[in-house]
Amino acid sequence: LIRISGRKFITFYYCERLDGGEIVIGDGGFVFALEKRGYVKAGPWTPEATVEHPEAVRQLHREFLRAGSNVLQTFTFYASEDKLENRGNYVAEKISCQKVNEAACDIAREVANEGDALVAGGVSQTPSYLSCKDKTEVKAAFRKQLEVFMKKNVDFLIAEYFEHVEEAVWAVEVLKESGKPVAATMCIGPEGDMHGVSPGQCAVQLVKAGASIVGVNCHFDPETSLETVRLMKEGLQAAKLKAHLMCQPLAFHTPDCGKQGFIDLPEFPFGLEPRIATRWDIQNYARKAYDLGIRYIGGCCGFEPYHIRAIAEELGPERGFLPEASEKHGNWGDNLSMHTKPWVRARARKEYWENLKPASGRPYCPCMSKPDGWGVTKGAKELMQQKEATTEQQLKELFQKKKF
Amino acid sequence: LIRISGRKFITFYYCERLDGGEIVIGDGGFVFALEKRGYVKAGPWTPEATVEHPEAVRQLHREFLRAGSNVLQTFTFYASEDKLENRGNYVAEKISCQKVNEAACDIAREVANEGDALVAGGVSQTPSYLSCKDKTEVKAAFRKQLEVFMKKNVDFLIAEYFEHVEEAVWAVEVLKESGKPVAATMCIGPEGDMHGVSPGQCAVQLVKAGASIVGVNCHFDPETSLETVRLMKEGLQAAKLKAHLMCQPLAFHTPDCGKQGFIDLPEFPFGLEPRIATRWDIQNYARKAYDLGIRYIGGCCGFEPYHIRAIAEELGPERGFLPEASEKHGNWGDNLSMHTKPWVRARARKEYWENLKPASGRPYCPCMSKPDGWGVTKGAKELMQQKEATTEQQLKELFQKKKF
Amino acid sequence: LIRISGRKFITFYYCERLDGGEIVIGDGGFVFALEKRGYVKAGPWTPEATVEHPEAVRQLHREFLRAGSNVLQTFTFYASEDKLENRGNYVAEKISCQKVNEAACDIAREVANEGDALVAGGVSQTPSYLSCKDKTEVKAAFRKQLEVFMKKNVDFLIAEYFEHVEEAVWAVEVLKESGKPVAATMCIGPEGDMHGVSPGQCAVQLVKAGASIVGVNCHFDPETSLETVRLMKEGLQAAKLKAHLMCQPLAFHTPDCGKQGFIDLPEFPFGLEPRIATRWDIQNYARKAYDLGIRYIGGCCGFEPYHIRAIAEELGPERGFLPEASEKHGNWGDNLSMHTKPWVRARARKEYWENLKPASGRPYCPCMSKPDGWGVTKGAKELMQQKEATTEQQLKELFQKKKF
Amino acid sequence: LIRISGRKFITFYYCERLDGGEIVIGDGGFVFALEKRGYVKAGPWTPEATVEHPEAVRQLHREFLRAGSNVLQTFTFYASEDKLENRGNYVAEKISCQKVNEAACDIAREVANEGDALVAGGVSQTPSYLSCKDKTEVKAAFRKQLEVFMKKNVDFLIAEYFEHVEEAVWAVEVLKESGKPVAATMCIGPEGDMHGVSPGQCAVQLVKAGASIVGVNCHFDPETSLETVRLMKEGLQAAKLKAHLMCQPLAFHTPDCGKQGFIDLPEFPFGLEPRIATRWDIQNYARKAYDLGIRYIGGCCGFEPYHIRAIAEELGPERGFLPEASEKHGNWGDNLSMHTKPWVRARARKEYWENLKPASGRPYCPCMSKPDGWGVTKGAKELMQQKEATTEQQLKELFQKKKF
Repeated sequence: LIRISGRKFITFYYCERLDGGEIVIGDGGFVFALEKRGYVKAGPWTPEATVEHPEAVRQLHREFLRAGSNVLQTFTFYASEDKLENRGNYVAEKISCQKVNEAACDIAREVANEGDALVAGGVSQTPSYLSCKDKTEVKAAFRKQLEVFMKKNVDFLIAEYFEHVEEAVWAVEVLKESGKPVAATMCIGPEGDMHGVSPGQCAVQLVKAGASIVGVNCHFDPETSLETVRLMKEGLQAAKLKAHLMCQPLAFHTPDCGKQGFIDLPEFPFGLEPRIATRWDIQNYARKAYDLGIRYIGGCCGFEPYHIRAIAEELGPERGFLPEASEKHGNWGDNLSMHTKPWVRARARKEYWENLKPASGRPYCPCMSKPDGWGVTKGAKELMQQKEATTEQQLKELFQKKKF
Repeated sequence: LIRISGRKFITFYYCERLDGGEIVIGDGGFVFALEKRGYVKAGPWTPEATVEHPEAVRQLHREFLRAGSNVLQTFTFYASEDKLENRGNYVAEKISCQKVNEAACDIAREVANEGDALVAGGVSQTPSYLSCKDKTEVKAAFRKQLEVFMKKNVDFLIAEYFEHVEEAVWAVEVLKESGKPVAATMCIGPEGDMHGVSPGQCAVQLVKAGASIVGVNCHFDPETSLETVRLMKEGLQAAKLKAHLMCQPLAFHTPDCGKQGFIDLPEFPFGLEPRIATRWDIQNYARKAYDLGIRYIGGCCGFEPYHIRAIAEELGPERGFLPEASEKHGNWGDNLSMHTKPWVRARARKEYWENLKPASGRPYCPCMSKPDGWGVTKGAKELMQQKEATTEQQLKELFQKKKF
Repeated sequence: LIRISGRKFITFYYCERLDGGEIVIGDGGFVFALEKRGYVKAGPWTPEATVEHPEAVRQLHREFLRAGSNVLQTFTFYASEDKLENRGNYVAEKISCQKVNEAACDIAREVANEGDALVAGGVSQTPSYLSCKDKTEVKAAFRKQLEVFMKKNVDFLIAEYFEHVEEAVWAVEVLKESGKPVAATMCIGPEGDMHGVSPGQCAVQLVKAGASIVGVNCHFDPETSLETVRLMKEGLQAAKLKAHLMCQPLAFHTPDCGKQGFIDLPEFPFGLEPRIATRWDIQNYARKAYDLGIRYIGGCCGFEPYHIRAIAEELGPERGFLPEASEKHGNWGDNLSMHTKPWVRARARKEYWENLKPASGRPYCPCMSKPDGWGVTKGAKELMQQKEATTEQQLKELFQKKKF
Repeated sequence: LIRISGRKFITFYYCERLDGGEIVIGDGGFVFALEKRGYVKAGPWTPEATVEHPEAVRQLHREFLRAGSNVLQTFTFYASEDKLENRGNYVAEKISCQKVNEAACDIAREVANEGDALVAGGVSQTPSYLSCKDKTEVKAAFRKQLEVFMKKNVDFLIAEYFEHVEEAVWAVEVLKESGKPVAATMCIGPEGDMHGVSPGQCAVQLVKAGASIVGVNCHFDPETSLETVRLMKEGLQAAKLKAHLMCQPLAFHTPDCGKQGFIDLPEFPFGLEPRIATRWDIQNYARKAYDLGIRYIGGCCGFEPYHIRAIAEELGPERGFLPEASEKHGNWGDNLSMHTKPWVRARARKEYWENLKPASGRPYCPCMSKPDGWGVTKGAKELMQQKEATTEQQLKELFQKKKF
């Protein structure tokens, strides 16, 4: 296989390529990677680094590009005006929402041009929605970001990380005003959104709202996320709707998380290390995603450049080429075949890494945790089922009253 | 505590500062971090990225600087001429040993000047020694790198990652020709070097050869490495020698590894993720290192910028300041105190993270592995003890003959 | 609480007591306990020990009685004629089906009289059914055992360990011919019987066939079994049927088993030790069973006398008395309060044992296993759903053809 | 191999057989087994069951005999007068020390005669010693039990479960007064007794006091216990003393316990289930014990009859016969070869069970625990080494003063 950096996208409309069955590789997780590199604060998770430290954001984009990403998402996660204000005043100098979004677009475009990837402008869930602001106000927040994306002429748009399909639909409606293709992903698991709307139903609503690509991102591990996308696919089929499927899960193993995903795990966000996926876990994910019919395959929190490279390498035979960064990576560890120790040489093969059950080195730690919070208690589940509560807020109030 | 980037070192001689009891924070692991970012190939682990992708090396240096490193080591690991040739021809364009070393010095100095850190030129063990070349030849390899370091005027020198004290002594002798301070670290555990020389004896030999700072790096986890340095300290005390102590361990938990460290673990090098240390593990390490009297505290493979920041934050009270990157990090998770969910807010405290036993999320995986290789078999140990074998090569031969 | 051995049952009809809300404590697992004691062979699992070594069977009955059992089941598991013949000729002397069943009744009655417990005659699934013999033939096998039970005048009857509700219904129909109360339990999990009949539907069919007590036994751990009984309860409520609920699960933790339960776990039957429940696990189970409305609470494989005592102690407050064996057991470890070591004394309390997460002492072993067999493969599940196969045999054949 | 129950011992003196290289199989753990059966109270662990429930003790002896035990130890653990008084008044009727010991001898002899095993009278450590009574008083306690053993004419004597070699020596001296052979085992690990006397030194003192068989019992798992016996063997060799070696370890995995063994593990005594050894673990132990030259191989707490059978089966080839209970047990699971499911049939072989890493079924539990107590702290170890403390009491006092 030849190695090339990204791949020319001649047409303007991305979906045409997906229509033709082409595989699109997304990028990885910015907030987690940049938190570890020292540029993002856990908690607020806001992207002012685009203005404060553009070189760090640029370098991470470049690494994903080299690893095989065909899409560079603008680093505009949680960059709505209400969120940036929310964040408090830990950012010394006041940086406007517009500046953050503009810088994000410029950096993404600059790097995308180094390898012919596409740039996608991204919006995510807003504090306005969570604090029950009305549709007009919430849409205004998305529109403010969209204006920047239009001015900077991104290639397409992504509405991602929504826990409530209602807000996701509003986001898609706004983004569709641009006339550009829109992808929409929710941070939900197989149990559906926070109001109990099933994955299949979420997908149907998003496609009806105008999304041409739907799926999930964040909150759950690859295995769980694939199951959620499978349910979305079934929902679309049942409704006789067509859309491309997309998956950008965590690169953490979270078999133990509840409805609200890894946020509720006791390890979130500063003790997740033992859960980090290996490159082989990700190759396995990429293969399963492909087999399920997903053609937009990327990652979210925890996905480092080498995880994206693993997707590109696993799907190398289908795509016919390898990413640039594979010049520094052997196929299934074959670069170990020259090692001086025979038992290390014995690791230079697919069977070895595929079957390895990696030890944690932590004999005093368990394998699973019980998620925190009322979200997973039996009481909360019953309240949801009994329809006494349909929003988190109602649930929380009931929860406090009934003392679950 | 105020936050500043690095700290002015007015004097030329680093050791004067250490003599005064000052804490020096080292940097983290380049080859592992850059492998994940796509610039270093596992197996050869050579640093041609200094020439091929200086921006990536520069960015990593910068992140360590922001995280609190007082020393930037030139990215010259395995950059001896014999090793670079060894590596085979996977590097498209032939890049000379001199160019790699010069570029490494230039990049390190450029970033060091952004924050007033010192630059240390580093050499490591050579293929020449392992293939039984004589002292003259091995020393010539070190001298070739030293010439570049002198030309580029690094601040001091580090001989690191030596499995045999004999070769480490030769390296120190060469580096001392420069007149600059020399630090020397070996990649050994409490059982000592590959010929069975104890840690205490290794330390004594290195100090006698001219090293003013001695300790360990790589191959073992923080806990094991601290035990090894403790033995070095005892050896020096018994010999009435004085030297500063240094520790740059792995950021992986390896309670199960044998004499040759993590190389022999079945997870090396592509399945180590579940072993990655959390920032809290590293704060714990930094405190114990300090309590043991170690004043040069850094990391090796697996140490990412946020691990170095954890050292700087743990020792913030002693040092009187925090690193620049702490502007994006709360003390013991206090940035979670504004979270909307009460159970996430409950994580905003030291007791929580200190006592967390993080789950692996991998219920099908064990907690420990049996190391591969003859290095750890009972038979091999006995041969060593019986002095039938004193080198790896002899052991390997005996091993094959006796079929352990 | 006073301690008494069993409790007088004045009325002949057991169900009247259950009707009055009284708690009935079952006994534990005979084949596993006697296998470890050296009297039962794993594989055949047949009860010829009633003839060969009556003293061993008697002693185990006695221990369960002392531990609090109100019912002693005749040790007639797998004692149908077809099964006893099947077993091959490892039993030196040929022992007839009748002798085995008679001896079982005699021993149970003898011990029951020591403490006023009831004797229940038990039948279980037959090789005849599994090899597709017709209804008449299968019923004849049950009838043969029933004749012995009638002759020996057991107090009531239990049809247990059925994987197919069809066979269980046949068994209940035969047992009802006696005019005695009949309990019926299946060895199924929440996914239902081997033909895919749901737990709720199974319960309905069993009650309609004449069972006055229904539930589950064996194959799954307490937690899973309680969930299955919960589904049975829902099924009965939906069908407006009434019956008492019964639960006799494994004393092994099996969160990882598939549809066919612990048989398919790689550890079955000789490596299950790390899964053995503690007494505290069983107290927890007893409480949950009680809260769910189950009033016949016992155990199956893995339940040793001390596990049954744990049920009796947990429900001591509700029952108003403790079993005889509690004279050798403190409440929640309070017998440790006199220990010389303060840290062992600190274990003499409920909070300690309730919250203990007991370590396995096996750092090289995982926490979960993947079940063996086609029973759990995706392919097999799909075949079941597609109704291509409705019996195990058909599934096996399809399985072999399609190579899942 | 033929199957026989025990084996004729024609000579009176046991050691002659050991001298001839014959393997002697001990029995298993009475207090733990009978606690689970409902006849012994954890905490006091006293053997009044010999009087209260002789049938239960008899049955357990019988099971061990059937499993292959050549020696039946009288159930006289902790049956010294001072201990029985200590126990408090939970035993309704006052039962004298003499009655307990006499009944124990009678039961053991009765069962031994069923299979020609030998009877060994046993004494263990006393409260008198721990509360610093003098030599005369402690010896008087042993002598009181010895009188019963002489009257009942046991075949030989065992002094077992001593934490202090001083007391063990006193016990051996008393037992030697009988003229019968004496075995002596201590419940110590490789670190030696509670005063820091090494295993080798303990063995030497015991042999010099008159023991013809020495070794360890209880407190540690098989692997650790074998290491301790190995050190005893080395000690004896260095001292040019001869004695037979004996090992009766726990049937629990305790890689994580400190100097005082499993008592200090948080799971002791009511949460040890996940640590229970499989029969295959015990076969492995028996083989290693044999290879080390140990010829008296048995078990202590946790050893159930099937564990003893595992020893007898592993050493069947060397002994030339199998125990009676093997008629109910296939070699390495070969009784599974007739199972209907092919994947269960696949378990009917040695390789399968030898290599199985059994899962705990407990994903929320760790693999290891930190032992409780000051006994294992670094501070305590240092105090011991510095000889500031040589008794537990001194250590405890120092410990409190120095606040470790």
